[in-house]
Amino acid sequence: MFAKEIYIARRRTLLEKMAATAPEGKRGIALFVGNVEAAAQYKDNAYKFRQDSSWLYYFGIDEPRFGAVIDLDSGEQTIYADDVEIGDIIWMGPQPSVASKAAAVGIDKSAPYGAMSVAVTKALATGRDIHFLPPSRYYNTMKLASLVGIPEEDVSKVAPIAEDGGRHASEELVKAVISMRLVKEPCEIEQLDDAGALGQEMHSIGRDNIKIGVIEQDIVGKMEGLVLQKGWGVSFPTILTQHGETLHNHLHDKIVEPGKLMVIDAGAENNMHYASDFTRTYPTSGKFTTKQREVYQIVCDCNEFAFSLIRPGITYRDVHLATARKMLEGLSALGLVKGDLDTMVAEGIAGLFQPHGLGHNMGLDVHDMEDLNENLVGYDPDQTRSTQLGLGSLRMARRLVPGNVITDEPGIYFIPALIEKWKSEGTGKGFVNFARLEEYYDFGGIRLEDDVLVTQDGARRTGPNRLPIQPDDVEAAMTCQP
Amino acid sequence: MFAKEIYIARRRTLLEKMAATAPEGKRGIALFVGNVEAAAQYKDNAYKFRQDSSWLYYFGIDEPRFGAVIDLDSGEQTIYADDVEIGDIIWMGPQPSVASKAAAVGIDKSAPYGAMSVAVTKALATGRDIHFLPPSRYYNTMKLASLVGIPEEDVSKVAPIAEDGGRHASEELVKAVISMRLVKEPCEIEQLDDAGALGQEMHSIGRDNIKIGVIEQDIVGKMEGLVLQKGWGVSFPTILTQHGETLHNHLHDKIVEPGKLMVIDAGAENNMHYASDFTRTYPTSGKFTTKQREVYQIVCDCNEFAFSLIRPGITYRDVHLATARKMLEGLSALGLVKGDLDTMVAEGIAGLFQPHGLGHNMGLDVHDMEDLNENLVGYDPDQTRSTQLGLGSLRMARRLVPGNVITDEPGIYFIPALIEKWKSEGTGKGFVNFARLEEYYDFGGIRLEDDVLVTQDGARRTGPNRLPIQPDDVEAAMTCQP
Repeated sequence: MFAKEIYIARRRTLLEKMAATAPEGKRGIALFVGNVEAAAQYKDNAYKFRQDSSWLYYFGIDEPRFGAVIDLDSGEQTIYADDVEIGDIIWMGPQPSVASKAAAVGIDKSAPYGAMSVAVTKALATGRDIHFLPPSRYYNTMKLASLVGIPEEDVSKVAPIAEDGGRHASEELVKAVISMRLVKEPCEIEQLDDAGALGQEMHSIGRDNIKIGVIEQDIVGKMEGLVLQKGWGVSFPTILTQHGETLHNHLHDKIVEPGKLMVIDAGAENNMHYASDFTRTYPTSGKFTTKQREVYQIVCDCNEFAFSLIRPGITYRDVHLATARKMLEGLSALGLVKGDLDTMVAEGIAGLFQPHGLGHNMGLDVHDMEDLNENLVGYDPDQTRSTQLGLGSLRMARRLVPGNVITDEPGIYFIPALIEKWKSEGTGKGFVNFARLEEYYDFGGIRLEDDVLVTQDGARRTGPNRLPIQPDDVEAAMTCQP
Repeated sequence: MFAKEIYIARRRTLLEKMAATAPEGKRGIALFVGNVEAAAQYKDNAYKFRQDSSWLYYFGIDEPRFGAVIDLDSGEQTIYADDVEIGDIIWMGPQPSVASKAAAVGIDKSAPYGAMSVAVTKALATGRDIHFLPPSRYYNTMKLASLVGIPEEDVSKVAPIAEDGGRHASEELVKAVISMRLVKEPCEIEQLDDAGALGQEMHSIGRDNIKIGVIEQDIVGKMEGLVLQKGWGVSFPTILTQHGETLHNHLHDKIVEPGKLMVIDAGAENNMHYASDFTRTYPTSGKFTTKQREVYQIVCDCNEFAFSLIRPGITYRDVHLATARKMLEGLSALGLVKGDLDTMVAEGIAGLFQPHGLGHNMGLDVHDMEDLNENLVGYDPDQTRSTQLGLGSLRMARRLVPGNVITDEPGIYFIPALIEKWKSEGTGKGFVNFARLEEYYDFGGIRLEDDVLVTQDGARRTGPNRLPIQPDDVEAAMTCQP
């Protein structure tokens, strides 16, 4: 946990931001419901506990079954949780009181978990607004619906409460939280570097264990064991695949074969719950083929090029588009596309090869705040989201400010189903060399990802030891060549 | 997945058992809702997927968002799930159809996930009974409540449907499922041995990494990395603690100190989702002190003694009580209790030292079927559950039959809060030597656990390589002594 002054300051800022949304006496309350244990098998056999990220940000207490209410008019703050009873002490050992846990994050008022409903009912009875964030988990959906007395489907509906007076997730609160969590504080940057270090160590283990004949799961276990030794665990389910062209691929049941490209997209969550997220692509045989190296070099150049553009004032949408242009330039040289680069960018031709965005926000969540509403998180009020393949999947388009932490993850994939779809629909006709693309149907995919902090005058990558990325360096680093 | 004949036979048996609960035409339908992904952070960042155990048992399909209906009158069986759309193939690669997945477990009828509600609504409209199991997860609670049109709190209420005609979890179905899952088939025993092998390897890594000065989390990560390499993961959150007297202890933030006892209670879940569950207790310094060895030997003798009693026909309640007597005999020799052994057993004196049961059922769940109702799972109709400390926590009391798989896990703990409670309340007065017990307030706890299969004429332990348990063998096996 951070020092309590951090949490006190964050909640003070939140109060100030919310004060701007309604006149005094009309501001209502903000209701926060932390996570409970999540059953893996039966109820009492839970997955490793993961606290809600916004809860961690404002209240820090990393334990299940906590709630909080902030009175947005009076500023009063209350933590709701149950003290362990004497019976529980026999099983759990002596435990600090809820009051002492609340005090450790600068809150001097606490009450039993059940009393949270009393506070909400009282606020409802006097017609006050109830501001809450859209929940990530089913329990929180059920709990919020029950506390506020609304249908479960309304709990995730984000709209301005001050305008419609409705009972649903609060756009005012969502926006206030996003505006704060988007800009990382120095203490957070330290944690992101720490998670970066662990993620880089994890990746090095992955790289060192690529051997022809081993099962992918064996490599994944070694990587994940390390993050369990030194951190909370993985920041997302590890992607480790010889079919990088399948973007949503979490199976690890294949044997490592010679001549393939192995995409490893993995990150660590440290014990303070900050995330890292890196991707590297390795030739399973230890050396790239000429064909592999040609495509690899384009992706590598795009990664470096995007990084060179990142600085305060530029939008990440523009970085995405400039990088798409760079990618099309490289693909032109390979004869896979042809035409005017700017026209191809405008036509979204790069989406055939990279059907995802250049990057996303990172922090306590690896896709930071994704559940708070992707567009409110990633788009400025003057930006609208594209419907183009690729650009439309860009999760972070905003004008960058110092303290933003984003991923830089260009990729080139040859997805036969997608290429065939474009071909049959006539999409990209005249630009895309469909005939030559057939030679790449068994190529797979390449993605190269670093995590980047926007600084006062530019950018730096987080994590102390950038993973080898230039193809010669990658080959030199591969120790397990057969 | 097992061969489809296994699942076909299981569902046929289930149909037969349910047929005995109501006349033909009055049997209704059985509704099964599999698990969906469980969010760790935001919705799309999920924990490693774990399918519902009863779903796995009858339907085998190890993927999220599946449902099934068995018509208990006609015998018709339908799988409900959504095929991937062309858009999804771009992201997920080509996928087998739902129909082919259903066929692989012997079901020839499938429909979209949403059609499950049509089937249930139709059954409701014609007044048919809807049999379902009490759910383990919040999603399943919400889904079942919505499908059947009942309050969420009724979903977990287990009562006989044929008797009260009510809409709630079905005691008939619960009992039928329990009667089947309690008796392991040969293919299941093979899996339990496999999970046992992995759990034993995991424990060996734990034992080999106990070193003064390392943080507990470091050892845990090494153990859990192995199970991720070779299996699904842990069968429950690893307990690794120098405070074994704290029974519910999942923190691993302590440095290994000399002279302590380290309790490691951990198990593996293999890729077929069968569990193992072992406990060993190690002297952190590599050698037991005399005081530690005295208590250790009692627990070790109890473990062996309990195993020697296990055979078809005896109740596990009787094994628990006989082992409690053995434990009191040992504690008498140490001068910690005194009095007639049978009287002390009847008075529940052993509960002060072992406030938990001797063991529980194991299978697809590490506490097998715990959410189906602990008493229906663990107690025969003619048995009632004790309220005594220790015996009251016994999760498996039934008369043993071949195919039962249970844990044998005696333990002795010195829990200062519990001892002080008994002392102040006068519990155990005349039997317990409270004065001498004060010398054990910093002792910690010891537990020794194996997994046991009831055979035709006795019992055998599951897992091929029993972990060293005799104190000399344990000391000899510890390689990391400082």
